[in-house]
Amino acid sequence: MAVYTEIGDGELDALLADYEIGGAIACTGIAEGVENSNFLLQTDAGMFILTIYEKRVKPDDLPWFLALLSHLSDRGFPCPVPVRRRDGGVLSDIRAKPAAIVSFLKGRWPRKPLPRHAWAVGDALASLHLAAADFGPERPNDLSVGDWRPLAERCGPGADDVRSGLADEIARELDVLETAWPRDLPRGIIHADLFPDNVFFLDERLSGVIDFYFACNDILVYDLAICLNAWCFEPDGAFNITKARQMLGAYRARRPLSRPEFDALPVLARGAAMRFLLTRLYDWLNHPEGAFVTPKNPLEYWRKLDFHRGVGGAAAYGLDF
Amino acid sequence: MAVYTEIGDGELDALLADYEIGGAIACTGIAEGVENSNFLLQTDAGMFILTIYEKRVKPDDLPWFLALLSHLSDRGFPCPVPVRRRDGGVLSDIRAKPAAIVSFLKGRWPRKPLPRHAWAVGDALASLHLAAADFGPERPNDLSVGDWRPLAERCGPGADDVRSGLADEIARELDVLETAWPRDLPRGIIHADLFPDNVFFLDERLSGVIDFYFACNDILVYDLAICLNAWCFEPDGAFNITKARQMLGAYRARRPLSRPEFDALPVLARGAAMRFLLTRLYDWLNHPEGAFVTPKNPLEYWRKLDFHRGVGGAAAYGLDF
Repeated sequence: MAVYTEIGDGELDALLADYEIGGAIACTGIAEGVENSNFLLQTDAGMFILTIYEKRVKPDDLPWFLALLSHLSDRGFPCPVPVRRRDGGVLSDIRAKPAAIVSFLKGRWPRKPLPRHAWAVGDALASLHLAAADFGPERPNDLSVGDWRPLAERCGPGADDVRSGLADEIARELDVLETAWPRDLPRGIIHADLFPDNVFFLDERLSGVIDFYFACNDILVYDLAICLNAWCFEPDGAFNITKARQMLGAYRARRPLSRPEFDALPVLARGAAMRFLLTRLYDWLNHPEGAFVTPKNPLEYWRKLDFHRGVGGAAAYGLDF
Repeated sequence: MAVYTEIGDGELDALLADYEIGGAIACTGIAEGVENSNFLLQTDAGMFILTIYEKRVKPDDLPWFLALLSHLSDRGFPCPVPVRRRDGGVLSDIRAKPAAIVSFLKGRWPRKPLPRHAWAVGDALASLHLAAADFGPERPNDLSVGDWRPLAERCGPGADDVRSGLADEIARELDVLETAWPRDLPRGIIHADLFPDNVFFLDERLSGVIDFYFACNDILVYDLAICLNAWCFEPDGAFNITKARQMLGAYRARRPLSRPEFDALPVLARGAAMRFLLTRLYDWLNHPEGAFVTPKNPLEYWRKLDFHRGVGGAAAYGLDF
């Protein structure tokens, strides 16, 4: 929960003068989202989200993210639509920080995902991959397999304070992942962070996907492997094969998986667990005293990684090829 | 900024089934408000605020607060209107906590109040006092002059860690206030917490007053004295006599002040500064490590108190009787 940047009197009016959505009726800081400052903005033209980008997002990447959202929404994918300024641009400045206004998406993210949610996410993920297939500009994934070891090294010996021996276990697992990582699977735009709090549902239907600020070009089924981690484990750590079956089934009904893609799921899921383990570990070891945001326990992802390490093959996720 | 209570899947639908405002289209935790959990709730019928009351508000007081809001809004005062349930009530339960739905007020609170805002607040405060004049039920002020010494004693010697000698200075000031406190000025319902973040403006006009959870029966001009503290000092500590003149002028144009009320303003303003000094001091000394909410520095109110202590009479606030 976070609002880092205050909008001063007059600044909002000055901003909105550059758009064609009327004046502000209300602008309320919202508690969700830990990376940026987000405001629910009501104008004569309706409801919008105003985002002020804080330091975690690279300003140079913003045009790419916003162009991707425009591209996807043009193709009917339910994501936020950037609102164009009168001058045609989609980026503005507030207090020397970049800012954008996007459409407001109805719905609410599921607090306790059910198998039907997992189905809908698999279906939407395939739609996203297909809708983005003709998006030209590329953004490399800066949190992919080659980036994990440097990140682990930046965590340093602190990992062992989280769990004795963890630093060594991570190093050994990275040896395996770097060797086994698939090199020639179909690539494209992936969301790369499709957790439950980024997917809205309304009247039991998926109504929106938000937070594309990790989107990038990478192996398409790596996105599915991220979702297996994000949606298919219960709070007690148990893997829910019913949800996995629903998710994979819905995905491949819309975008069929090749045999190599299917077979790569366990190693990709291990890698996805490693990626979230490492960023959580880094945040855990480096969060400032008294920060607003309590870091999430990294060990949840060590346990997920361990599950994927133990499966005999992708069939463990509930479907045969 | 705070959302303390999560609303589970299905809980919102179950809650809204008790009302006649349709189903939830969106429900977003908002970052403002430090006492309760507040959500911007969009339904088929429009925008509302859903509040879940956390422990600082006494549940037994809630019917009084909500009845006051209904009374004021019936008389045209721009405050949140409690939405009635199908059974006629205005209180619900979420996760064993009391909850209410009220109308959403347009506008935005002024980050840098100007004299015109001070004028509008004086005008609205008088309207509030007049509109509440025929509200029957009473709620005593549990933060009035008789409550300050016990509160100061609960702060204990920690006050001296905030500023050397502060505990003694507070005790001596309380001796003065308890003796000088006026006993027979006109009483009625006061807001008692009318700070800038509780007053919304839209298109340069006051559009709403929120957060009545300190409202109570007390000396009417004590409310004006609170507003002098809340609105008429600059960030650097300087008293802005222009704002005070606007505020007092607007107030008495709508509700004329008697001579005793006018003359009591300096001591009431000292008392108001003491009240906020003490609650801030208590919160400063007692906030939990790593809490979301950073307590406000209590010394700001010691300096305001000192200003009021130094004035020769109410004319120092910009108007002669």
